[in-house]
Amino acid sequence: MTETALTGVFPIAPTPFTADEALDFDGQRRVVDFLIDAGVDGICILANYAEQFSLTDDERDGLVDLILGHVAERVPVIVTTSHFSARVAAERSRRAQDAGAAMVMLLPPYHGATIRAEAEGLLPWFQTVAGAIDIPIMLQDAPISGTPLSAALLARLATEIPLVQYVKVESAFAAAKLRELVRLAGDALPGPFDGEESITLIPDLDAGATGTMPSAMVPDLLGPIVRDWLAGRRDQATTAWEHLLPLIHYENRQCGLRATKTLMHEGGIIASATVRAPMLPLDPATHAGLLALARRHDPLVLRWGR
Amino acid sequence: MTETALTGVFPIAPTPFTADEALDFDGQRRVVDFLIDAGVDGICILANYAEQFSLTDDERDGLVDLILGHVAERVPVIVTTSHFSARVAAERSRRAQDAGAAMVMLLPPYHGATIRAEAEGLLPWFQTVAGAIDIPIMLQDAPISGTPLSAALLARLATEIPLVQYVKVESAFAAAKLRELVRLAGDALPGPFDGEESITLIPDLDAGATGTMPSAMVPDLLGPIVRDWLAGRRDQATTAWEHLLPLIHYENRQCGLRATKTLMHEGGIIASATVRAPMLPLDPATHAGLLALARRHDPLVLRWGR
Repeated sequence: MTETALTGVFPIAPTPFTADEALDFDGQRRVVDFLIDAGVDGICILANYAEQFSLTDDERDGLVDLILGHVAERVPVIVTTSHFSARVAAERSRRAQDAGAAMVMLLPPYHGATIRAEAEGLLPWFQTVAGAIDIPIMLQDAPISGTPLSAALLARLATEIPLVQYVKVESAFAAAKLRELVRLAGDALPGPFDGEESITLIPDLDAGATGTMPSAMVPDLLGPIVRDWLAGRRDQATTAWEHLLPLIHYENRQCGLRATKTLMHEGGIIASATVRAPMLPLDPATHAGLLALARRHDPLVLRWGR
Repeated sequence: MTETALTGVFPIAPTPFTADEALDFDGQRRVVDFLIDAGVDGICILANYAEQFSLTDDERDGLVDLILGHVAERVPVIVTTSHFSARVAAERSRRAQDAGAAMVMLLPPYHGATIRAEAEGLLPWFQTVAGAIDIPIMLQDAPISGTPLSAALLARLATEIPLVQYVKVESAFAAAKLRELVRLAGDALPGPFDGEESITLIPDLDAGATGTMPSAMVPDLLGPIVRDWLAGRRDQATTAWEHLLPLIHYENRQCGLRATKTLMHEGGIIASATVRAPMLPLDPATHAGLLALARRHDPLVLRWGR
């Protein structure tokens, strides 16, 4: 299985909205085309950086159909199908597979600040999801779930559930966890992934990651870094990533998911950088700081739609 | 407005599932009939004690229609319409109003362990919801939202948004917060409510609460307590509540929402106490402990369906 595993850069496509917060289907298609032109290895949709938590189920279904149809197998698409209920997560995953998804990505079940699965409920939960599909599962290990997942537990899930073939680690001290996970899971985990805007990309590649799931901000700049690294040109990759890090850091710490929308709007890819309330637009100073920093890198996102 | 405010006991109706986790419509109607026979002042649906976090949007819509239709104005129904997005929460609230809801209940926006509204986004968020409806709003102040709401902020929301007429306080030190909230909001808040299974009912009534939103476990026993208290028979109410407290405490600390389903199943109201995974069924010892404790109170829930 390892020889066919997906590797490389799989950005999270944002969900563009019109100024009055409706879905922007035309913008959504342009986001997809931009990403493919940027040379991505695949696209992830409906993740939290796609504001999935602000969508209805109907909107989610409509976006799956729209995007899978528009991608038309040009690149593999990973669909996020997280839900607290195992039954609903399984239904969402099956629907994504039927629409043509190459993979589903799920966080462990969570709701709000306090509702979590008991430890003994976690393995059956993922087994229920896996039982509904035949495509690989990427397990997402991120703080938003409020569910600490040890490397040992992640390795156990990958080992006991054959479809759990990818784990995206974006929790604290990601590289150390990835290294331990790779050691424990071995061939049961063909796809250890880096995440969180690629802000720990080089340490994570060094720890065994074979892919990254960043935002959709600068995939054209991240692609060569990952390809260089995987081809053994580690110094070149490291130098390029360290050069890019201030921009990724500004995104991660000052902007969040608004950075990609802001640059896509500036670059003519989407008509509006609107996020759904209660998220607020970037304040003017942060907006200006992001643009100034991004322009120094001349990324495709600022040129594609112009 | 105060003179027509709703007061009394407004239990959260559970969402019964069949053994394979499908919605149980017949059981849902029986739950409603049991509650009305138990003398409740109203019913709340789709709250977290109704496992709303395990439902799809379609299931939610279907339950609103089913329950409002079956209640047929016998008692007022409060529909929980929380969602992270202001736009979606407003749509849900409008839909509930159109279906006949007397009130909507909302937590402040939250998603997972980490995504919250910025403070300045909270007032516009509730204004967007209020702008979509004409029925009162109950604001829910509970730990699950991970959003600390001070008495001053709650009072401000009640004062600046006329439809925010009820606040259910079930955060830490509820009575002190209720007392301060009542003092600050005055006539702008006709409905300060107690919540959390009525586990702080008497201190909260003493602080100014005029209603409670418990589980649906023992509404027949809670009704007289609240009515006695509101009629000035405080000693009688306090004695009865202190007698009931070990059962409520066992529910709150050992069972959670499974207590109501377990007793409703035992009493022949619903065919299965199933909760959706990853929630686990009560272990046998806790199940036995709950039944033994409940039987000492001979509640209607254990007799209604027999």
